Amino acid sequence: MRIGVDVGGTKTEAVLVDGSGVVLRQVRLATGFGHEAVVDSTVAAVEQLGGHDGVSTIGVGIPGTVDPATGTVSHAINLGVDHLDLGARLASRLGSEVRVENDVNAAALGAFHLLGVPATQSIAYLNLGTGLAAGLVLRGELWRGSRGAAGEIGHILIDPAGPLDLDGQPGGLEAMASGSGIARQWATGEPNAVSAVLDAADAGDPRAVQIRSRLFEGVASAVRILVLTVDVDAVVIGGGISRLSDRILEGVESVIDGWARASPFITSLELGSRIRILPEGSPVAALGAAHLAAPTSSPRLVS
Amino acid sequence: MRIGVDVGGTKTEAVLVDGSGVVLRQVRLATGFGHEAVVDSTVAAVEQLGGHDGVSTIGVGIPGTVDPATGTVSHAINLGVDHLDLGARLASRLGSEVRVENDVNAAALGAFHLLGVPATQSIAYLNLGTGLAAGLVLRGELWRGSRGAAGEIGHILIDPAGPLDLDGQPGGLEAMASGSGIARQWATGEPNAVSAVLDAADAGDPRAVQIRSRLFEGVASAVRILVLTVDVDAVVIGGGISRLSDRILEGVESVIDGWARASPFITSLELGSRIRILPEGSPVAALGAAHLAAPTSSPRLVS
Repeated sequence: MRIGVDVGGTKTEAVLVDGSGVVLRQVRLATGFGHEAVVDSTVAAVEQLGGHDGVSTIGVGIPGTVDPATGTVSHAINLGVDHLDLGARLASRLGSEVRVENDVNAAALGAFHLLGVPATQSIAYLNLGTGLAAGLVLRGELWRGSRGAAGEIGHILIDPAGPLDLDGQPGGLEAMASGSGIARQWATGEPNAVSAVLDAADAGDPRAVQIRSRLFEGVASAVRILVLTVDVDAVVIGGGISRLSDRILEGVESVIDGWARASPFITSLELGSRIRILPEGSPVAALGAAHLAAPTSSPRLVS
Repeated sequence: MRIGVDVGGTKTEAVLVDGSGVVLRQVRLATGFGHEAVVDSTVAAVEQLGGHDGVSTIGVGIPGTVDPATGTVSHAINLGVDHLDLGARLASRLGSEVRVENDVNAAALGAFHLLGVPATQSIAYLNLGTGLAAGLVLRGELWRGSRGAAGEIGHILIDPAGPLDLDGQPGGLEAMASGSGIARQWATGEPNAVSAVLDAADAGDPRAVQIRSRLFEGVASAVRILVLTVDVDAVVIGGGISRLSDRILEGVESVIDGWARASPFITSLELGSRIRILPEGSPVAALGAAHLAAPTSSPRLVS
């Protein structure tokens, strides 16, 4: 049996899975804030599952910059975590080996298992949440790249006239198609800026229509870029915005159809049919955390 | 010993390499035009190497759409090849197993071996020639993706106000930063449009300066996209335009430096230091063809 924990910005979700990947038990509790409280709520989640007797591995997915080789987490601002030796802290509290991974990477691995993708195939998991990032699972294995930057496509710039990201760079995928990017463009203080923009666009507000168009364009471009670069079998969309899939998917497909009408090559890629939407509420990052492999030593740059 | 053949638009280059990858012999001759002539010139190249006695594998890199599983080549327009069963035709003429691969993919594998990249590392080979495309070698293995489209980044669109590609889509990397894309923007009939644009830009022609800026921006963006998506250890630049590297590399680095000044995250990626330029005249596609592994059956889409 394996345990996977998804340490989210507000909730921590944990699953106990058996050897064939079936979820036997699942718990959810509030995530603590700050170094000690994050460790405490993670330990509490494992204990609420009934502890870890008979458990072979414990995996944790968490936002921020994660070094899987050491189990350290940095810059997880929403959790109040600056630099935390999470793997070692949990291992000493739980008496087990603990594997730590970035939450989007963990979710990518979880999506691969949840959707029952054959081990010879590859997916990108496109997380549309507060931020925009992807995780790659190539033939069943998580692909982190040379320094863990693989899938950081939110920083790809596709429109010099587009909205600015936090660094002031224009037209980044994250600025166009994430919760934070849309909240910066539609700064009305409404709790869910994406829903608010979609409502206002439906009501005919021209600025909301433009922001919505860029959301559709950004998501479609993310799919196009992932397929043209890595040629994954499927792009699985998850994250908070994906819960609005009935309000955005048609728009995204319309962008893709426009490209396909112009270009026989793009038609041949069948981008639209590669898109999958995660079932709502899937504990995908926790499930993926349970499937984390032992870290290998980080490869180094060509010298 | 292995033989690798690079069937180019005008020249066919063939190498004989020993078990440790050292090039023992190298020949170059004119490529035939049309189905029969391409087969003939490829056979002639192998024969000029001294035949294939004692040779364990023969690999061929060729432009167009290649199915490595069957050895067929389609849409190699510059070679007058519509659909050619090249692998089988060569195998019957040469009496050996023949592996066929797209030329950019073959060059990627060749660059990996030529530069002596450790087997645990990964590169993208960015071909800046008549077209713009990349090949990926991930931990020593060619990565073709689910349908052979991996690395087709020339079709990534980064500027809605940019020059049009052949399908009429704006701001594609190929339209901005390839020989054909620049020739369409600078249609003066000069034999080398890229050199002509660089000369005119040096002389202060404002339109040439704009085309040159987009060339720099396109190459830098290709590097950024490859690193943000796959996080390869190095991006190796080759192809016809790379022979002008002393005239373009500084401009590309200046674009990257501008991004890095704006963004600590982009700074942390060290994009500039990941760029490698292939030594001029390296028989990189032929070398890579000699290293082609036996094809595996094509993986299928998630159903």
